[in-house]
Amino acid sequence: MHRVYLDNNSTTQTDIRVLEAMMPYFHQYYGNPSNLHAFGRETKEAMEIAREEVASLLSAKPAEIIFTSSGTEANNLAIKGVLRQVADKGNHIITSSIEHSSILNSLEFVKKWHLAEIAELGVDKNGLIEPEALKQTINRNTVLVSIMHTNNEIGTIEPIKELCKVTHDAGIYFHTDAVAAAGKIPLDVNELGVDLLTISAHKIHGPRGVGALYLKEGINIGSIMHGGMQEHGLRAGTENLPGIVGFGKAAVIAKKDLLDGTVQKIEALRNLLEIQIAERIPDVKINGHPSKRVCNLLNISIAYVEGESILMNLDLEGIAVSSGSACSVGKAEASHVLKAIGIEDKFINSPIRLSLDKNNTKEEIDYTIETLVKIVERLRAISPLWKPKKK
Amino acid sequence: MHRVYLDNNSTTQTDIRVLEAMMPYFHQYYGNPSNLHAFGRETKEAMEIAREEVASLLSAKPAEIIFTSSGTEANNLAIKGVLRQVADKGNHIITSSIEHSSILNSLEFVKKWHLAEIAELGVDKNGLIEPEALKQTINRNTVLVSIMHTNNEIGTIEPIKELCKVTHDAGIYFHTDAVAAAGKIPLDVNELGVDLLTISAHKIHGPRGVGALYLKEGINIGSIMHGGMQEHGLRAGTENLPGIVGFGKAAVIAKKDLLDGTVQKIEALRNLLEIQIAERIPDVKINGHPSKRVCNLLNISIAYVEGESILMNLDLEGIAVSSGSACSVGKAEASHVLKAIGIEDKFINSPIRLSLDKNNTKEEIDYTIETLVKIVERLRAISPLWKPKKK
Repeated sequence: MHRVYLDNNSTTQTDIRVLEAMMPYFHQYYGNPSNLHAFGRETKEAMEIAREEVASLLSAKPAEIIFTSSGTEANNLAIKGVLRQVADKGNHIITSSIEHSSILNSLEFVKKWHLAEIAELGVDKNGLIEPEALKQTINRNTVLVSIMHTNNEIGTIEPIKELCKVTHDAGIYFHTDAVAAAGKIPLDVNELGVDLLTISAHKIHGPRGVGALYLKEGINIGSIMHGGMQEHGLRAGTENLPGIVGFGKAAVIAKKDLLDGTVQKIEALRNLLEIQIAERIPDVKINGHPSKRVCNLLNISIAYVEGESILMNLDLEGIAVSSGSACSVGKAEASHVLKAIGIEDKFINSPIRLSLDKNNTKEEIDYTIETLVKIVERLRAISPLWKPKKK
Repeated sequence: MHRVYLDNNSTTQTDIRVLEAMMPYFHQYYGNPSNLHAFGRETKEAMEIAREEVASLLSAKPAEIIFTSSGTEANNLAIKGVLRQVADKGNHIITSSIEHSSILNSLEFVKKWHLAEIAELGVDKNGLIEPEALKQTINRNTVLVSIMHTNNEIGTIEPIKELCKVTHDAGIYFHTDAVAAAGKIPLDVNELGVDLLTISAHKIHGPRGVGALYLKEGINIGSIMHGGMQEHGLRAGTENLPGIVGFGKAAVIAKKDLLDGTVQKIEALRNLLEIQIAERIPDVKINGHPSKRVCNLLNISIAYVEGESILMNLDLEGIAVSSGSACSVGKAEASHVLKAIGIEDKFINSPIRLSLDKNNTKEEIDYTIETLVKIVERLRAISPLWKPKKK
């Protein structure tokens, strides 16, 4: 039985080296880093090394890293934390229509409770946001702009540096959700110029249950998790020490992979997949920007077949892909990202997201192409809507 | 070098059986449980088994368990989640003066933002809350009572069943923070009658980074972490699957330990420690209730010496204890719990919390007694305040 995992934007396999790094911090070194005794000191030290490692992936300072339980929590903290701190200055937040649900639903929440007004920037057909449109939308009540670095469904890479400049010119904080970018695109917070940035461990072969918010030195935000004084008082709760140590190791490996050709290898396989699918399956649309797209992602819409049917048929053949964000599962509606790029009706219900990692092989990609071609032929043969073009 | 760990109320060693149960869910089975493909289905199944195991420790239904990232998050969710749901009914919350910082600071937060008014019930000299006092404090705006099951610093066990009855007679929700009770005292949500209850994995030899809120069937609360639809829409963010699996295993072991004499063994060692210290060190006060106290905890105040000095000296001899809650570290002030029980001035700055677990041995306890006696004698000899009683 084949087992081909092409759903790395949902989650990744924990790297065995990450697991090895974590192992001593369950049973052997287990002190609470907040404690002053020897058991606490030895874990506190491990936590601070991990903080340096995660900071290094972003070219940030260790003190600028706040560990959270997930990317979702880091996004919640960015939105609500900034809003509370600047409550006296204004309550207008600008975002995009293609953000992850943790941004959109955090904003929906603050809007519902009359804590903020939200403006959503539209995107072009490739998913790009126009800096000029942002400039026009900023008003004197605007206190935060949150625009994702790389879209998690279609992979489009936004012009963060330019968007950030427009935002800073107006004296406003800029946050970016870089969960889908980390490990695939070099991230330098100084070069990007962002004030806050979100990443997640389990999207870069680190463990589940840990994320981080980069918070630029000198910026104050409020806490959303109240209790103890962990993480400079910004995130209460006993630290997930093995998770944090694993995140550190994953960051070290991700940094290396960005430099040693690993990322290029992933991109080559993704390109092979893309070219073959476009060549061999008629009436397919590649979603996202043709070139400004993260290296590991291919989002396609296949007309006249249901995406869910393709998913299930691929699953029967041992291939794991998804129709969009794992965080959107349970919602019956079409992807808000595909709606935002204004996709044709015949394509909207059939997105397939294939997201690769460094462990995928050419054999797996070849097998996936062959299998997908066969499945689409079979499903179209029984589709009342499909009329093959004359040759 | 001795290594004696008597700080189990800060955190516990992850049980090796827990770690073994978790291991397959990092590298071998790593799918996102929200995904419908095979990789996701196999982890979804593991997550639901863990939910049953955690539910079983509380005699709850699996669907009544919401996994969070910590006890702190579960407490934040209980307070803010209920408050948002009942916003139209009232905004008065009753708590006690000896709660964990995650309750007190969540309440401080909602008070600061004018979302609620808070009433804090005082306690007697043993840390007990009087059900009659609760009855008198309830008013028609009261929407929630949150009183801890077992105090984390002094170990006093509150009359939850009676407090709950008074609360329910007035038609109000009752939440209890049972983090310090779980694994040491049988917890049956039906017998207690509570509507919401908080527990944490790492306090029962489970992993860091996972907690749970029991939420009685039929009660609706708001979410505090916005994003995906995980945990019935009540807790967004990719699930910490290995952590959840480990929590399940820890709950199974804890349930067994409650029945097979393990808890009694811990209590016997704690009693030995208590009797010896009371006999051999003059001017010592045992904090907390003499009998209604959790089996693993001893909180003592030693007059005329600083608690911090004792801590550091014990640490030099390889013994780990703490002065109170690990979550309070960083605060210079005296324990709010000791203030609440109205402790004499000479005792307030010297609390030592010794918290045992099943791995502690009689040899460790004997060594701790001998060492503590010597340290106190040495420190008192150089204390200008100490005047030994005439024999």
